[in-house]
Amino acid sequence: MRTALNPGSFDPFHNGHLEIVETASELFDQVVVAVIRNPAKTPLFTLEERLEMLTEALVPFDNVKIVAMKKLTVDVAKDVGADVIVKGLRVASDFEYELQQAQMNRAISGIETVFLPCASDSSFIASSLVRQIAQYGGADRVGSMVPPVVAARLREKFNQ
Amino acid sequence: MRTALNPGSFDPFHNGHLEIVETASELFDQVVVAVIRNPAKTPLFTLEERLEMLTEALVPFDNVKIVAMKKLTVDVAKDVGADVIVKGLRVASDFEYELQQAQMNRAISGIETVFLPCASDSSFIASSLVRQIAQYGGADRVGSMVPPVVAARLREKFNQ
Amino acid sequence: MRTALNPGSFDPFHNGHLEIVETASELFDQVVVAVIRNPAKTPLFTLEERLEMLTEALVPFDNVKIVAMKKLTVDVAKDVGADVIVKGLRVASDFEYELQQAQMNRAISGIETVFLPCASDSSFIASSLVRQIAQYGGADRVGSMVPPVVAARLREKFNQ
Amino acid sequence: MRTALNPGSFDPFHNGHLEIVETASELFDQVVVAVIRNPAKTPLFTLEERLEMLTEALVPFDNVKIVAMKKLTVDVAKDVGADVIVKGLRVASDFEYELQQAQMNRAISGIETVFLPCASDSSFIASSLVRQIAQYGGADRVGSMVPPVVAARLREKFNQ
Amino acid sequence: MRTALNPGSFDPFHNGHLEIVETASELFDQVVVAVIRNPAKTPLFTLEERLEMLTEALVPFDNVKIVAMKKLTVDVAKDVGADVIVKGLRVASDFEYELQQAQMNRAISGIETVFLPCASDSSFIASSLVRQIAQYGGADRVGSMVPPVVAARLREKFNQ
Amino acid sequence: MRTALNPGSFDPFHNGHLEIVETASELFDQVVVAVIRNPAKTPLFTLEERLEMLTEALVPFDNVKIVAMKKLTVDVAKDVGADVIVKGLRVASDFEYELQQAQMNRAISGIETVFLPCASDSSFIASSLVRQIAQYGGADRVGSMVPPVVAARLREKFNQ
Repeated sequence: MRTALNPGSFDPFHNGHLEIVETASELFDQVVVAVIRNPAKTPLFTLEERLEMLTEALVPFDNVKIVAMKKLTVDVAKDVGADVIVKGLRVASDFEYELQQAQMNRAISGIETVFLPCASDSSFIASSLVRQIAQYGGADRVGSMVPPVVAARLREKFNQ
Repeated sequence: MRTALNPGSFDPFHNGHLEIVETASELFDQVVVAVIRNPAKTPLFTLEERLEMLTEALVPFDNVKIVAMKKLTVDVAKDVGADVIVKGLRVASDFEYELQQAQMNRAISGIETVFLPCASDSSFIASSLVRQIAQYGGADRVGSMVPPVVAARLREKFNQ
Repeated sequence: MRTALNPGSFDPFHNGHLEIVETASELFDQVVVAVIRNPAKTPLFTLEERLEMLTEALVPFDNVKIVAMKKLTVDVAKDVGADVIVKGLRVASDFEYELQQAQMNRAISGIETVFLPCASDSSFIASSLVRQIAQYGGADRVGSMVPPVVAARLREKFNQ
Repeated sequence: MRTALNPGSFDPFHNGHLEIVETASELFDQVVVAVIRNPAKTPLFTLEERLEMLTEALVPFDNVKIVAMKKLTVDVAKDVGADVIVKGLRVASDFEYELQQAQMNRAISGIETVFLPCASDSSFIASSLVRQIAQYGGADRVGSMVPPVVAARLREKFNQ
Repeated sequence: MRTALNPGSFDPFHNGHLEIVETASELFDQVVVAVIRNPAKTPLFTLEERLEMLTEALVPFDNVKIVAMKKLTVDVAKDVGADVIVKGLRVASDFEYELQQAQMNRAISGIETVFLPCASDSSFIASSLVRQIAQYGGADRVGSMVPPVVAARLREKFNQ
Repeated sequence: MRTALNPGSFDPFHNGHLEIVETASELFDQVVVAVIRNPAKTPLFTLEERLEMLTEALVPFDNVKIVAMKKLTVDVAKDVGADVIVKGLRVASDFEYELQQAQMNRAISGIETVFLPCASDSSFIASSLVRQIAQYGGADRVGSMVPPVVAARLREKFNQ
């Protein structure tokens, strides 16, 4: 049995993320989605809110579970028994950054990383752009880019 | 059981390729390495020579087999029952090209592609550079970059 | 009145090209699509075949005309009275090449270039991939990526 | 009549920006330059100061007007009746970011974006570098990179 | 006699930095390593701590000296009599940023910049990743990526 | 005394190349410019013609000499006693390719490579674009981009 760890901030989780989880759930026996708590940044949604949204959005996937991440990725991987880290890639500059992370993670723990390319029609969806649009009164306009639970939370947060 | 298809020209097969096969053989139940016959280019080694070298270099891997590839990658994938295509990535410009290929392959067949990052210490090894060095009398100097069988064939080909 | 010149090999013309022409025809009063004859390469379709396909595919656009290009782009621009060159961009490596071309064209003639980004869902469609798929018996599979006239010609050319 | 919207932080406006406005004013009937107010960042110059400098620097252009931007770019575009968004591009990493923005803007509003390449001899001028030099006592040294009104304000701000 | 200036934040100094200093010390008669004090960021190590670590790590190099940098790079270069600026490059996005800096520095002072490529096996070592690992209790794990004095300070800082 | 080797095809030598030689001649005691003979390509100018043009164009530089290159770069470096290889860089994709070459050259011989960035106002000048313009009757138009001897030869070759 092979387990993959898919770490991310997911602030918020969007359809590009969902596709990666879906593909990973087909390629591996189990997928653990790990939500990063970055103390240095103030997220739009708290760690708890993000965990709730992911839990709801990922109900259809039997072999996916969700954890909060308060350690280095490679240590979370060990804790959950992951054989490999899975990351989505959208553009070349993502790749350069993620390649360094992957090589660093291999150097300090031996764990490998596999990259899954995003679908072309969601390649422009980024959490930062979704936040920006929602904050300027456009929560309705990102409805086709995020799972229903995330759309609802964005509308609620911005009183729309 | 999950099978991965790893296509490439492998002209010649080098240690960067070997690492990708090794990682793929751990992540998937079976790996099929497919050697591309590109009628538009004159390779350094014939398709048969490349198949022989790969066969010898990949002896240690029980779950890896080698085929010649005379169709589109997605059709070979179907023929061998592959669930996914596996490609190695070294640099950002590789990524841009491979992302298009991956998205095209998904569009025409539904098959997904996963990318494995090369190890940092073999990131500069490319078949084109290995050929170039060997052709200018440097077959001995690429000994640490290719499997022994490839090193031997390079020395033979260039009478060294 | 402003006229834009859209040069390309169009071997073959595909839906990504079509989108660029469509957008250009909205932004400018007239668009001249110029088909490059590159004596150094053997195209899949002759210059005449490419002109015929473009003529048919671009019938819906009243303000678009098609010419063959046997001079430098900047000289064709002058001949057709173009105020600006229009190029589509898909990926970052396209950009680097096209930026140099644009700066060179400005240096030798003063003409400016504007870039139009491809739509995300056709970002993986490239003429080289379309040719490759069609040549390996997959003309039917690129039907959704090219105008009907191009799909018909591909099937014809490969006896499918 | 076609109107283009050119949004930016312009903190401060420099000669690379000026070239983009100049080219846009030739390609389109009207150009609206929109100055972004980003509440998350503390700019070097206030929104008001930036509007004043732009107003002075753009006096020579009859068909250019300047607005402050307190909404999403696509909403400002609608407010001012813009048919298209215009952005300058300097380097490949700019392109990757701007392509995502352009595809997102098209997805939520249907508006297209055109990119204008910077001139090669101003490709290294970035507002962040201009600020950095001026802050370390080098306001005089950026005199050739910014319009006179900006040079004067920089000298004033840093008491030089 | 030729002197090279090698500026950086060095927060902390790691083996990739060390290689650049080593190569520079062979190519030039004297190398001045300049530690940037960036008032806008809170570093992990104070300027004084970084100067101490560099001083110890660079003892083996007779022709290298260390200074703190409180001016523009080009002004520090003039103060120390440097003929050229030396920067290490790891990935393509580094290059794009450093090229702009280099062209800007030439424009305001005439000083040239040379780039030294990192070794492939340290290409993934970045100060930001080293800090991140150390902060999450992994100071021991970066021991092979930094000079002994830096490893000791990291362990001390994080009470490990 | 330090000697730098600057290898290239120089087909033809242009002002971007000239700037690199000029900077290298200031940074190193001696510069050897090595002209690559690539048997796989048909150049516009023969090796002999290229050597003649370089010899004339580089007369002003006392510490520069020119050789033909019929071996691997690292072997030519040894033959001429070079301590380092010098390459010019214009764009990020150049960097990715040259970084691999540099790391490969270090791996097989221990020799280091330094990169010199092109000047921003010649960043778009590439030999391939110069050839293309000259071949289409534009030899006069590249006069400002190449040394006088190269401009004369281009005019001569194309009977202009």
